[in-house]
Amino acid sequence: MVILFAEKSKPADIAKAKKILEKAEVDFIFQKSGKNSAFVLPASLSQKKIEEIKKLVKVEVIFLNEKQPFLSSLRYIEKRKKIKILNWKWEEDLLFFAVGPCAVENEKVLETIAKTAKKCGAKILRGGSFKPRTSPYSFQGLGEKGLKIHRKICDKFELFMMSEVLDRSDLPLVSSYSDIIQIGSRNMQNFPLLKAAGKLNKPVLLKRNFGSTREEFLLAAEYILSEGNDKVILCERGVRVFNPAAKNVFDPASLQKFKEETWLPVVVDPSHSAGDFRYVGTIAKSAIVAGADGLMIEIHPEPQKAFSDDQQALTLSDFEKLVAELKKICQAVEKRIE
Amino acid sequence: MVILFAEKSKPADIAKAKKILEKAEVDFIFQKSGKNSAFVLPASLSQKKIEEIKKLVKVEVIFLNEKQPFLSSLRYIEKRKKIKILNWKWEEDLLFFAVGPCAVENEKVLETIAKTAKKCGAKILRGGSFKPRTSPYSFQGLGEKGLKIHRKICDKFELFMMSEVLDRSDLPLVSSYSDIIQIGSRNMQNFPLLKAAGKLNKPVLLKRNFGSTREEFLLAAEYILSEGNDKVILCERGVRVFNPAAKNVFDPASLQKFKEETWLPVVVDPSHSAGDFRYVGTIAKSAIVAGADGLMIEIHPEPQKAFSDDQQALTLSDFEKLVAELKKICQAVEKRIE
Amino acid sequence: MVILFAEKSKPADIAKAKKILEKAEVDFIFQKSGKNSAFVLPASLSQKKIEEIKKLVKVEVIFLNEKQPFLSSLRYIEKRKKIKILNWKWEEDLLFFAVGPCAVENEKVLETIAKTAKKCGAKILRGGSFKPRTSPYSFQGLGEKGLKIHRKICDKFELFMMSEVLDRSDLPLVSSYSDIIQIGSRNMQNFPLLKAAGKLNKPVLLKRNFGSTREEFLLAAEYILSEGNDKVILCERGVRVFNPAAKNVFDPASLQKFKEETWLPVVVDPSHSAGDFRYVGTIAKSAIVAGADGLMIEIHPEPQKAFSDDQQALTLSDFEKLVAELKKICQAVEKRIE
Amino acid sequence: MVILFAEKSKPADIAKAKKILEKAEVDFIFQKSGKNSAFVLPASLSQKKIEEIKKLVKVEVIFLNEKQPFLSSLRYIEKRKKIKILNWKWEEDLLFFAVGPCAVENEKVLETIAKTAKKCGAKILRGGSFKPRTSPYSFQGLGEKGLKIHRKICDKFELFMMSEVLDRSDLPLVSSYSDIIQIGSRNMQNFPLLKAAGKLNKPVLLKRNFGSTREEFLLAAEYILSEGNDKVILCERGVRVFNPAAKNVFDPASLQKFKEETWLPVVVDPSHSAGDFRYVGTIAKSAIVAGADGLMIEIHPEPQKAFSDDQQALTLSDFEKLVAELKKICQAVEKRIE
Repeated sequence: MVILFAEKSKPADIAKAKKILEKAEVDFIFQKSGKNSAFVLPASLSQKKIEEIKKLVKVEVIFLNEKQPFLSSLRYIEKRKKIKILNWKWEEDLLFFAVGPCAVENEKVLETIAKTAKKCGAKILRGGSFKPRTSPYSFQGLGEKGLKIHRKICDKFELFMMSEVLDRSDLPLVSSYSDIIQIGSRNMQNFPLLKAAGKLNKPVLLKRNFGSTREEFLLAAEYILSEGNDKVILCERGVRVFNPAAKNVFDPASLQKFKEETWLPVVVDPSHSAGDFRYVGTIAKSAIVAGADGLMIEIHPEPQKAFSDDQQALTLSDFEKLVAELKKICQAVEKRIE
Repeated sequence: MVILFAEKSKPADIAKAKKILEKAEVDFIFQKSGKNSAFVLPASLSQKKIEEIKKLVKVEVIFLNEKQPFLSSLRYIEKRKKIKILNWKWEEDLLFFAVGPCAVENEKVLETIAKTAKKCGAKILRGGSFKPRTSPYSFQGLGEKGLKIHRKICDKFELFMMSEVLDRSDLPLVSSYSDIIQIGSRNMQNFPLLKAAGKLNKPVLLKRNFGSTREEFLLAAEYILSEGNDKVILCERGVRVFNPAAKNVFDPASLQKFKEETWLPVVVDPSHSAGDFRYVGTIAKSAIVAGADGLMIEIHPEPQKAFSDDQQALTLSDFEKLVAELKKICQAVEKRIE
Repeated sequence: MVILFAEKSKPADIAKAKKILEKAEVDFIFQKSGKNSAFVLPASLSQKKIEEIKKLVKVEVIFLNEKQPFLSSLRYIEKRKKIKILNWKWEEDLLFFAVGPCAVENEKVLETIAKTAKKCGAKILRGGSFKPRTSPYSFQGLGEKGLKIHRKICDKFELFMMSEVLDRSDLPLVSSYSDIIQIGSRNMQNFPLLKAAGKLNKPVLLKRNFGSTREEFLLAAEYILSEGNDKVILCERGVRVFNPAAKNVFDPASLQKFKEETWLPVVVDPSHSAGDFRYVGTIAKSAIVAGADGLMIEIHPEPQKAFSDDQQALTLSDFEKLVAELKKICQAVEKRIE
Repeated sequence: MVILFAEKSKPADIAKAKKILEKAEVDFIFQKSGKNSAFVLPASLSQKKIEEIKKLVKVEVIFLNEKQPFLSSLRYIEKRKKIKILNWKWEEDLLFFAVGPCAVENEKVLETIAKTAKKCGAKILRGGSFKPRTSPYSFQGLGEKGLKIHRKICDKFELFMMSEVLDRSDLPLVSSYSDIIQIGSRNMQNFPLLKAAGKLNKPVLLKRNFGSTREEFLLAAEYILSEGNDKVILCERGVRVFNPAAKNVFDPASLQKFKEETWLPVVVDPSHSAGDFRYVGTIAKSAIVAGADGLMIEIHPEPQKAFSDDQQALTLSDFEKLVAELKKICQAVEKRIE
């Protein structure tokens, strides 16, 4: 529940309401953004308590519909500066550019990838050590061994590290290595994981599930935001459709609409949308012209030998060619890749 | 059914097969493209006749699966020159740019629209006089009166005229006015209409139904092609999806795939995909970077007063701004708007 | 547009409004159902005319949203008796049971099918002589020759004849033979055909397009109703979905909802929903428990030799077994097959 | 990876292969079912190891595609007896009938519900104490307090307890109270949770995600099975579709297909498929005629006061009426509710 105070509410009245909540032993976060003030409660208040607050506070209090996103909404929250990642100031026109293999496999392969990624302007080196695989018989990731390799290569090439977490209990481990935490499509509504990620002071990249609605996606982000972590990066990667050409259809209008509704950055993963290396470029280009704040692309020196996602990774040379094309399109829409 | 001869087939044997078909009193078209020769039959042959041809001809004969597109396929047909529209040579890099109102309403409004369209580089003035409307209680078009206005304005501004036909029996009338015949989404599988359009010597723009598969779309085009008219222009306008942002989701990867599979030009209608003027620009831009051969955009001087589709038409000034942006993106991908 | 008069409107005022419409030379139908009176106009009136009627009539006049179904709606039209087909009174609990091949092929095959259909309680013998086929290279139907065979067999077995029409210009021919006119999924929004069917005094079975919304389906029916033909039978046959088991997913809740919204009978075609004979039974059973008013099932003595739809037709013996099962389920929900 | 031995493989060769795996320090499960023997490995083997086994074993060894379900497949596993739940033998024709509120709210409400459930033949009392809610501002469940109430009422009415787990780390707690563990749609691909559930010796009810394919669902079950727990119950609850009547469309043909492909019981949750109490009955009936092994239905004495899912719960009296109808349909298909 969100208790949003009217703009003209007096600080004294807000303080009074705060005391009621404290007395009720309810967890809450106080959110101040521009002229708006709000208490965000990770659970519903009883109707009785709501009446009590309304009576005592004597100010215009708006109790939001719990099914509406609040903390991510441009309607309630003033547009903030872009999320700062460690010491890197992410400027408005610069693409968040994350490149890497699907899974961390070994040091040599990752180093080759990192070299190309760096050369092409990537800021972030992605790669999973805990892999969510559709089949239990597929490669499941190297675990901590992979995290160590990933960290080492990121340090060597001065790239930010982004690694995926599948389960709340793995979060401390992954978080001790990785600069950015990735939460994948299949865990978009793993609410205990989202809440735990909300307690971190690290950027969290949250991917949209291919079967979820736009609102479900924003409310999943709200789980992280309502725990106090506002470094949330949304990542679109297409939805399930009858008879698609790519695996999951990337909808450019949907991306634009997210940019209009939320102040959170929205990046696109053309590799998982395409599910096929041949369509990665087209989707990446569409994402840029639709206003994406960044891209996440899978590359591999020998895709056919990759431990996973072999169909969708670009070869290093195809990737270099694509980046040259992407830079031209960036220019046309006043974006840039470093 | 398509009887495709092996490349090495002798002309004498092909002639023999032709005689068998003639004797059988079966309708067929002889198609020669590069090294390939084929008989295209608008119906199936009996198994007995197939055996007879196989026996007599004594050459390698391939009987294609009837469910595969043949005449539109790059696999069988050598890439031809772009379709020539009247005296206008449509070059590879130039966009087919069709602009206009949803429906022809009156001369004054159409003239205002045509002026802006011409100024912005459009070659074609679109506008329906027979309108396919979801509800019987909506405006159904001006009929022949509309066609006359449309023709007059096209002549004045030297624009090609494109008008929609809903029914086989209206084809002679519309065809006597219009340079390009449009067959809409709802009629994509109106087979008698497709066959009749296949007998014209005019370009036909065929729009994909929002609920059809990619293959159904190509086979609908095949109906026109198999009657002898090879001036077919495919038009994508999105598909039905759960929880879309726009009305029908435009899939950029699908467009690319059509361009890889067929030699037919593929244009995009961002207005009907969006169903909302706010998303028209984003979809148009995505279409260009995905390789579209053209665009079809609805504009209106006062969209809120339009007789139909008031939500999706751009105002004239918004359209001029958009064209400036589209031109920049065209440059980045080596396309152009005149 | 629909001009719905308030219940308390005086006949004199309604008569006055009628004159305004007549003077305006607008086509309209006067519809009286229970306490409601309405003028149904197959096109929109100008805002000026609307104001004129409002002023002169001086009664409460409600101008319906053109996007809402009106004539099919239980909200406006009092529940009428079931549609009478020729001399057959279709009672509430009796299933409209249409059985037959996909296409009429020859007299012998159709006779075999008709015999089984009759024996199993079918009232209607379906079978197309004009076939809407996805590919131009597939069998397109026997045309009038097929209609003659179809009529002969129907007369012999005392079954009603149902045949499909693809195009407005074929309607007089098919209508001269067939008792019930079928309009297929691909023609659901072939508006000239719908209007022409609305001028017949014969039952029209209208099938839902696999990519259409529920409202588009009802508004397609409205085209027929608004021309004066109220013998419209709706037919559900599933919608396009990602990763379906059958070809087009039959949604039992959607059927129930149609039954709640409209007084029109709603029958189900499990054969085209399934696209595979193995699922026909399950979908037929679901249709019955969901409240369907009828079923349409494809059968063939030798499905593998059928000219079309060979995968979805049931053999005669499988059909007989299925009917025995369907009868048990009918009993459980107080329906019956004759 | 699954190493499936040819039927004629000698036990000595299988034993040899086992030693290779042990030496390779790979985790594996040996699976014997009828004439088939297989090693199931929760991860892929290197190509080198695969060659080694092939060479040494000298028997026909089939390495299954890792993307195919194996342990759930009727193709490889002989049909086993139905899953035994505690001391209750679940016979072929008896429905698994789970009834209860969405969330455990308090003892009094749950007792009222349990009384009706028991009276109507339910065997299982469902109800969540850890709730997966789309919004962080919605009621999140009572936690352990709820589990205690749930256990107490189950003991009183001799009903099996089924409760949902959202996270691997909550599994020991919930498992210490509940007889059956529920894994919800949003966690269908929470792989660490699935693996942990695979180590239990308790029935696990796994719900299909509304955006997942049929194969993804079976492979999620495979995660539980491949860890050694074969008491897996699949639960269908519909998929996302454009323009549905209910919330998630229940596809009766898909249910039938699951029954043909897997030996696992497949139950249906009409409440979550419907998302609306008015459609629960129709979907429940369709599920029974399509061959469902069970039903899961939400009921509440005062749905409008429920803490969650207030739209979809049936009132107690509506539920009683529905059960009477379901029993009649069960009879028609030789199923029964106790």
